[in-house]
Amino acid sequence: MRRSLFTLICALATTLAAFAQTAQIQRLNPTNWWVGMKNPKLQLLVYGPNAGTLTYTVNYPGVKLVKAHTVENPNYAFLDLTIAPTARPGTLKLVGKRGTQTLTQPFELKARNREPKAQGVTAADFIYLAMPDRFANGDPGNDKFADLADPNADRANPVYRHGGDLAGAAQHLDYLKDLGVTAIWFTPVLENNQPLTNEGGLMRSAYHGYGFTDHYTIDRRMGGNEGYKEFVRKAHAAGIKVVQDAVYNHVGINHWFLKDMPMKDWLHQWPTYTNTSYKYQPITDPHGAESDRRVSLDGWFVPHLPDLNQNNPFLANFLIQHAIWSVEEFGVDAWRVDTYMYNDQPFMNRCNAALLEQYPNIHIFGESWVNNVVDQAYYTRNKIDFPFKSNQPGGLDFVVYSAILDALKQNFSWDDGVNRFYQALAQDAVYADPSKLVTFLDNHDTDRYLSVIGEDINKYKMGLTWLLTTRGIPSMYYGTEILMKNFKNPSDAEVRRDFPGGFPGDKENKFTAAGRDKRENDAFDFVRKLATYRKATPALHTGKLMQYLPQDGTYVYFRYDANKTVMVASNTNDKEISLDTARFAERVAGFRSARNVLTDETLSDLKLIKLPAKTAVVLELKK
Amino acid sequence: MRRSLFTLICALATTLAAFAQTAQIQRLNPTNWWVGMKNPKLQLLVYGPNAGTLTYTVNYPGVKLVKAHTVENPNYAFLDLTIAPTARPGTLKLVGKRGTQTLTQPFELKARNREPKAQGVTAADFIYLAMPDRFANGDPGNDKFADLADPNADRANPVYRHGGDLAGAAQHLDYLKDLGVTAIWFTPVLENNQPLTNEGGLMRSAYHGYGFTDHYTIDRRMGGNEGYKEFVRKAHAAGIKVVQDAVYNHVGINHWFLKDMPMKDWLHQWPTYTNTSYKYQPITDPHGAESDRRVSLDGWFVPHLPDLNQNNPFLANFLIQHAIWSVEEFGVDAWRVDTYMYNDQPFMNRCNAALLEQYPNIHIFGESWVNNVVDQAYYTRNKIDFPFKSNQPGGLDFVVYSAILDALKQNFSWDDGVNRFYQALAQDAVYADPSKLVTFLDNHDTDRYLSVIGEDINKYKMGLTWLLTTRGIPSMYYGTEILMKNFKNPSDAEVRRDFPGGFPGDKENKFTAAGRDKRENDAFDFVRKLATYRKATPALHTGKLMQYLPQDGTYVYFRYDANKTVMVASNTNDKEISLDTARFAERVAGFRSARNVLTDETLSDLKLIKLPAKTAVVLELKK
Repeated sequence: MRRSLFTLICALATTLAAFAQTAQIQRLNPTNWWVGMKNPKLQLLVYGPNAGTLTYTVNYPGVKLVKAHTVENPNYAFLDLTIAPTARPGTLKLVGKRGTQTLTQPFELKARNREPKAQGVTAADFIYLAMPDRFANGDPGNDKFADLADPNADRANPVYRHGGDLAGAAQHLDYLKDLGVTAIWFTPVLENNQPLTNEGGLMRSAYHGYGFTDHYTIDRRMGGNEGYKEFVRKAHAAGIKVVQDAVYNHVGINHWFLKDMPMKDWLHQWPTYTNTSYKYQPITDPHGAESDRRVSLDGWFVPHLPDLNQNNPFLANFLIQHAIWSVEEFGVDAWRVDTYMYNDQPFMNRCNAALLEQYPNIHIFGESWVNNVVDQAYYTRNKIDFPFKSNQPGGLDFVVYSAILDALKQNFSWDDGVNRFYQALAQDAVYADPSKLVTFLDNHDTDRYLSVIGEDINKYKMGLTWLLTTRGIPSMYYGTEILMKNFKNPSDAEVRRDFPGGFPGDKENKFTAAGRDKRENDAFDFVRKLATYRKATPALHTGKLMQYLPQDGTYVYFRYDANKTVMVASNTNDKEISLDTARFAERVAGFRSARNVLTDETLSDLKLIKLPAKTAVVLELKK
Repeated sequence: MRRSLFTLICALATTLAAFAQTAQIQRLNPTNWWVGMKNPKLQLLVYGPNAGTLTYTVNYPGVKLVKAHTVENPNYAFLDLTIAPTARPGTLKLVGKRGTQTLTQPFELKARNREPKAQGVTAADFIYLAMPDRFANGDPGNDKFADLADPNADRANPVYRHGGDLAGAAQHLDYLKDLGVTAIWFTPVLENNQPLTNEGGLMRSAYHGYGFTDHYTIDRRMGGNEGYKEFVRKAHAAGIKVVQDAVYNHVGINHWFLKDMPMKDWLHQWPTYTNTSYKYQPITDPHGAESDRRVSLDGWFVPHLPDLNQNNPFLANFLIQHAIWSVEEFGVDAWRVDTYMYNDQPFMNRCNAALLEQYPNIHIFGESWVNNVVDQAYYTRNKIDFPFKSNQPGGLDFVVYSAILDALKQNFSWDDGVNRFYQALAQDAVYADPSKLVTFLDNHDTDRYLSVIGEDINKYKMGLTWLLTTRGIPSMYYGTEILMKNFKNPSDAEVRRDFPGGFPGDKENKFTAAGRDKRENDAFDFVRKLATYRKATPALHTGKLMQYLPQDGTYVYFRYDANKTVMVASNTNDKEISLDTARFAERVAGFRSARNVLTDETLSDLKLIKLPAKTAVVLELKK
């Protein structure tokens, strides 16, 4: 009683104070919208001093203001609009009145363009993951801005911004195309106007991009909104799709709306700071405790990335509309979701459904860093009768990631070595469609592939061969093709080094054959050869996979369709062996010879196949 | 053409030769049946020289001979009978005629008795697994028989028979009852009239029991059919249920029907001897090769245990009827199935369905030695949309077995140590009912528990505490309670040693407190105390499980129902810790004190609980 009376008085006081001032509209989010969208509904966030105290009207043919919501903070209004299919493009006027004050705010309803967008990525693609700050600097003029929270750029400091941008990446689209890449996935390019943050005693910048401070602004240091549009146009022109890295779980502590939150439960609030446990088991465990689930899901990722409360319906709308807006505005093709498993999963389903309703071909693949297929299946369309059913089409395949590394690192034994890789795929029955998972060997959060496998070039080629020929959508972390290496020691900046040749003044340019040494060219040519073959070979996209039990350190599988059979035979041993193919009659019968895709040699006899030590051969079988 | 003509001539010759001899009926299987069974159908196997050339009739009220099948071998007939609900107990006469010859064979249709049978085992039980040859010898007169293929018994030889029998086990039912055991599971007691077999250069006997040579005969060395009935009666009188160990996958090479097989495809035949790969992945792998599946399922377990072809409908009926017959004849309560995963799974479903139709409470739990929950789920009722859906109610929990051992062997880290146990249970969403899985710490095929955990008595108690308080139906391998140990080195006989005191002339008798040393009594008393508490505590049977994320080497879970909450708090560290229970408010709130079930001490404050090093405490919470 007492408490609610107090609350009431406070609310009254706030309202009175608000009325004492004039109102302003400083922001509308989304910043624009389109006519002709599948979903006629739109919820406008209106922000400004006392923006929530205005009475709003809209007078535009086909557009109705259905409801205006006020919330705890009088500086916000949330306006539910419907946009009829008959509405024409144009600029509507949002009118806000209070007493004698009248505010008018234009809001553009664009015509949808016909540029390619939301093309999706499929198993026919080969995704290249790059951190734009570390890939190439096309515009040294946008490296740093004195008016931003972190005004630094310093390539000498591994954890500061280095100046890479979208313009720089655009200059190397030909390089990527030549390599056989068909899609580029950047770590986020949205504004991260974050201050330097203290992480383990190290003052670090937000060059990774995962701390958004304004959803509707691409970071100036990346090239801004126009720079992003330009990049997507150029990428599409080069036949390369663009994957956007989305973050729903958290925002940067400097996000504009956190400085004056719409309501207290916009974030997950805790009595004292509570970090997520980073544990996923409580989410799927039928025996799990609710308190453990709460910490996993609602605990903060790190102190400077506050955890959004997606159960707040206004926030949920905000995030979902931003996703749609991003695809429509920039023309991106696919959607990678950061820290997928820490999000509220019913919210994720609504968000996925909204994207898929508008863009049926878009692919969505989230990051859920788990160690087993059951937990991995939980976050994608699956065949397990969980109490909650995910509608996510894809997902990053962390199980296969670990399994391939184990396969390369471990000696062969009953369950180890290449058996790990085999066994991971053998559990694919849990997924609705495992070919929609995105496979990888490393990323910006892990030790680099080459270092993990002991810088062994044979293992390097074997693992890449598996990546590019097994089921799934392969992705590769930038620099893998030029043998970039390192462990995350002393920090993850070691695995996020600049691509040599991407920055003004670089002494080496590894974007060119001349700039690469012999070993690097061997690696580059290997990836290019295999990726190019893959690109042209539908059996590696949509063909079935048949894998055989590993035996004596060998592992053999086939990708096949009505037109082509590709045999991938791996020898993980330290010595050459001669592989008897009698076991594989089910797939080899009817074929008489083969072309070694990597060496272009012809094998005239398929009965016994010589496999050099630590080598995977890719054989296109011939009748 | 030529070949089929040759086959035809051979068949004619065989038939003519058969007609030249008189016929005999030497065996009827089943050896008897009952009136009033749910399924009115029965298929009699009739065996004897030319038994397949006779024309059969049956004249008995309510019994019809629906069809007589002849097969490749003229010495077999398979007779389809129906037994009407109105049929009365009695002995029918099976009449076989051929020309002037008339054979009459009696076949008893018994009345069903009202003795307890098929009571099932549930999570309220505690199963004791013993090898009867190694547990106790009650009748030295049946240790060996000169007319059997292996006439030896020699306790000095670890891999020969040692003379243990059902009569011996019966003498120790009080011991088991006192220990808190509620069900006994013997390795198979069916006739194993197998010769010594050469295994790795060692001539070994079939004392393990997994090589049946006559399905309808309990081995004389165990006490024969009457001895088994007597044992079950005594066990039931002592309140102990009996689990029968069933083998469908294979039989002993000396099985009577293999000496003159009904038809060639009675067994899985291979051009050259083919062993199973012992690999289960090809069975569930959506990418698996049919040839790998065939080897896994149809390859022979070992050369002296031929692989039965359960796709042969006559064999399938034979096996299913034997299962029903065993329960009805001996009154056993539950059904453990050997090498479950190597069986034809549609056959297993039919077999399970037949048992469950007749005995709805019987529990069936098969052995599928896998390393992950997906493969484990495949062989029990599960929540995964596999192309094949198992109807098996239970299963041995090999995943939790490995996980508990890892939890005890490994140091605590992100995914290791007690996290292994926690994570295994956290994947229970794949099972229809994980409480029906049978948990264990070792068995006759594994290293013994005590040795695996480095003979550490603290770990020993912690693991047993988990076994007896987590979800599932706990089972314990004989001798664990008296600290029997050993690795399977040089052979598995080392983990199958005689129970001291079970054999005439034993110097020690560990069935009595006086015969056990202090350490052994400590272990025995520990198991007894916990098992006795478990027996009386429904919250540990049907109560829910709630488990919390392991932290800093501690692991806490609760079993609870409307009446009782039991908290199990484990400290896997090497030093005592003080556990703050604030995290567990969801389960601890409302309770003020607790009784330590193992020490009978009272804890008057639940806020901080002292946990000694490497100890799991069991606390019954009090309001």
